[in-house]
Amino acid sequence: MVFVATLRFPEARQMVLDRVSAAAMVPQTEEVALEHAAGRVLAEDVVADRDYPPLSRSLRDGYALRASEVPGGLRVKGEIRAGEMFRGTLGAGEAMEIMTGAPMPAGADAVLMVEQARREGKRVHADMAIEAGAHVLPRGAEARQGDLVVGRGARIGFPEAAMLATVGRDVVSVYARPRVAILATGDEIVEVRERPADYQIRNSNAYSLAVQVRNAGGEPE
Amino acid sequence: MVFVATLRFPEARQMVLDRVSAAAMVPQTEEVALEHAAGRVLAEDVVADRDYPPLSRSLRDGYALRASEVPGGLRVKGEIRAGEMFRGTLGAGEAMEIMTGAPMPAGADAVLMVEQARREGKRVHADMAIEAGAHVLPRGAEARQGDLVVGRGARIGFPEAAMLATVGRDVVSVYARPRVAILATGDEIVEVRERPADYQIRNSNAYSLAVQVRNAGGEPE
Repeated sequence: MVFVATLRFPEARQMVLDRVSAAAMVPQTEEVALEHAAGRVLAEDVVADRDYPPLSRSLRDGYALRASEVPGGLRVKGEIRAGEMFRGTLGAGEAMEIMTGAPMPAGADAVLMVEQARREGKRVHADMAIEAGAHVLPRGAEARQGDLVVGRGARIGFPEAAMLATVGRDVVSVYARPRVAILATGDEIVEVRERPADYQIRNSNAYSLAVQVRNAGGEPE
Repeated sequence: MVFVATLRFPEARQMVLDRVSAAAMVPQTEEVALEHAAGRVLAEDVVADRDYPPLSRSLRDGYALRASEVPGGLRVKGEIRAGEMFRGTLGAGEAMEIMTGAPMPAGADAVLMVEQARREGKRVHADMAIEAGAHVLPRGAEARQGDLVVGRGARIGFPEAAMLATVGRDVVSVYARPRVAILATGDEIVEVRERPADYQIRNSNAYSLAVQVRNAGGEPE
């Protein structure tokens, strides 16, 4: 009868942990350009650099106006496109043509959708009442300046990349990838470039594990 | 009334395709080391370089023997471990201790599992009958030499990497990543490193799309 001494997994794991210094287990961080940060884990809390949106914004193509002045006809004073800003104030009886995403003019509190508007020359008519705030995204509705937008520990996928770009972070701090050493052992194993004898096999596990380590965010060695 | 001429997607797509030369649409291929091939698309058919397994192999730790000689006692002639090969032939009344994965000795046609064997010194006893072929993986059972094991067009994940390594392919031919240019347009857009005015936003879509292009196997520009 032959007894083979084998370690169970928890014992083997503890033996390894006992021999690892605490310093080696503190994750290192590094700065990376946002375009190379996909798949990395954020090592800092990132906050909004301003209110989002920074001004109240139209959610529809249509007409910015005072909700209290419709139904009825209004004079179209001009047009505000995305990336533009109207620096005056809407007077009584006035509306501004506005595009989705454009900042609301001062004085206006609602947007009449273009599909619900009847335009006649310089005038626009609404056939129905609308409520104050309709189709308007108020300043700060998505985030207030200083609000956490992507937290430490988040893995950077495409939504996180968009958010980091939005708040102006073209360089971010991420944790270094854990390096994972792969040791395939066995008398029957030869390297992939070698020609194995009939009783040998090539080291395929190391390649398979390396891909899995990389997919999990590690750096295989 | 202002009419804005817009293109529908099928028309826009056709306009682009009409201006692309056929040569530019033939996918290019390149040779890459297997350790860097994860996520790439194979540009060749890869076949087995030998039978898999190349010899009949034990599927269990136990005793290689002739099924016709059990139940009953047999003389244990020696031991075959994975990565070893027994070059003799099993005689009548003989068994060989064998480990999982080790090649079957000539003359043996079945494996008696160690859990079902009673060992007494140099002899082993089986209390039950076993069938020829029991716990044996026959030569070529997984693939015959020349069989397709990973086909052109396969995306290389960890199972494919393992298979390519198994058949000795440490360099493979893959399709070049499609380069995808991203052009974000809009009067309201400024670059991520810039400080936008209140009516402007940073170019977050380009970063989000770049991550998605990369995840899909492309090379964003």
